[in-house]
Amino acid sequence: MPATAVSCLTLNRLSLYLRCLRQLQRRGVHRISSQEMARRFDLSASQIRKDLAQFGEFGIRGVGYDVDQLLARLRGLLGLDRPHNLVVVGLGHLGSAVARHFASNHRAFRVVGLFDNDPAKIGQELEGLAIRAIGEVAAVVAETAAEIGVLAVPADVAQEVYDRLVEAGIESVLNFAPVQLRQSPRVRCRTVDLRIYLEELVYFLESDGATSRALGKPGR
Amino acid sequence: MPATAVSCLTLNRLSLYLRCLRQLQRRGVHRISSQEMARRFDLSASQIRKDLAQFGEFGIRGVGYDVDQLLARLRGLLGLDRPHNLVVVGLGHLGSAVARHFASNHRAFRVVGLFDNDPAKIGQELEGLAIRAIGEVAAVVAETAAEIGVLAVPADVAQEVYDRLVEAGIESVLNFAPVQLRQSPRVRCRTVDLRIYLEELVYFLESDGATSRALGKPGR
Repeated sequence: MPATAVSCLTLNRLSLYLRCLRQLQRRGVHRISSQEMARRFDLSASQIRKDLAQFGEFGIRGVGYDVDQLLARLRGLLGLDRPHNLVVVGLGHLGSAVARHFASNHRAFRVVGLFDNDPAKIGQELEGLAIRAIGEVAAVVAETAAEIGVLAVPADVAQEVYDRLVEAGIESVLNFAPVQLRQSPRVRCRTVDLRIYLEELVYFLESDGATSRALGKPGR
Repeated sequence: MPATAVSCLTLNRLSLYLRCLRQLQRRGVHRISSQEMARRFDLSASQIRKDLAQFGEFGIRGVGYDVDQLLARLRGLLGLDRPHNLVVVGLGHLGSAVARHFASNHRAFRVVGLFDNDPAKIGQELEGLAIRAIGEVAAVVAETAAEIGVLAVPADVAQEVYDRLVEAGIESVLNFAPVQLRQSPRVRCRTVDLRIYLEELVYFLESDGATSRALGKPGR
C-alpha cells in the first residue's frame, strides 16, 4: 500500500478523533475510555485503540485516555500547535462568511489577507482587516508567510486567481469555486463544492428511482 | 463489490463530469471529445468513455459528445431535473451565506424555509423569505415537502436541531456544525467541516515534519 494511502486514511480518522475530543472537552469531560468514546460517537473502540497506540498513546485500563493530553498530542501530530496564516480571495457572501468564521473561531488559523477585485469593496474592513486589491496578493503572501489561500471567487476567474496564488508562493488552496482547476503539482488543493454535496444528497433521495435502475441496482 | 460502493464511486465521477460540462457550456462549447475533455480537466479519456457508455451515452468518433444533451442526461440521472426544496437552520455568517448561495445560484435547489432561534433575526427577511422560529420547522417541512435540511447552528445545539429536522420528516441533512452527530439510519447526512478541510491541508504542509516521522513515513 502506498504511504500516501495510509496517511490519508489515518489522517481522516485523526481529524475525526480531534473533533470528538473537542466536543468532550467543551462538555467538561476529562477522561474517556475507548469504549465510551466509541459508544458516544458511533466509532469502533478497537480501531481507536489501534490508531492511538500507533502514536504511543495508550489508555489506562479502567481510567481511559486523558482528554486534554490527547488533544494536545493530536494537535501536535497534525501541525495544529502553531498558527497557520491564510488569505481569502473573493469576498462575496461565501468568502466573507468563511473569513469571519476563521477570524473569530479558530486560533490555529490566522486570516492575514483579504482580497477582492471590486473597487467598492477594496479599502473596506472585515474583522479588522482591510480588503485589498488582488494585485497585492503576492506582496502580502511574501510579507506574512501565508501558507493557505482560500479561493471564493466566481467560477470564471477561479483558474486565473488560483494561478496567481500559486505564483505568489501559497502552498495549499481551499477552493470554493465550482470548477475543476488545472493544478500545480506543488500545491495541495481541496475543493469544497457545496452544489456537489447537495447533488450527492439528492442522488440518495432519488436512489430508488431512475438512477438506481440506470446503475443496475435492485430497487428498494 | 457491494452495490453502494459502486454507486458512490460512479456518483463522484458523474458529479465531476457534470461540473466539467457546466464549465464547457458556460464557455460556449457545444461538442467535446473524451480526449479533449480529459486533457482540459486532467481526467482519463477511457474512464470517461466507459462511465458514460454505462448510461448509453456514446460520443461520435471525430465529433464527440453533445455537451447540452449530455448535461441534460446526467442531470436526469442524478435527479437534478426537478427542483428540491431545502430549509436552512441557523442564520449566522455561514448559514446566511449558504442560504444566499442556493437562493440565487441554483435552480435545482429551492430555499423554502429559514430558521433561527435569535428573536432579533426572527421576522427579518433574507432573499425574500422571512426567518422563522425553529419551533415552526415541522410545519414548514410538512407544508413545502422540503427534503433537505442545511444545519448551520453552533456545535452545542447541532444534535438537538438535527433530531428536530429528522422528526420533521427531512430526508437528507447537509451539516456545517463541527460535530459528530448521532444519526438516524433513515436520513443521509453529509458533514462539511471547514476546519477539518483546513486541518487536512495543514497536515500536508507539515508532511515532511513531525507527522511523517510519527507515521513512519520516510522524510522528503
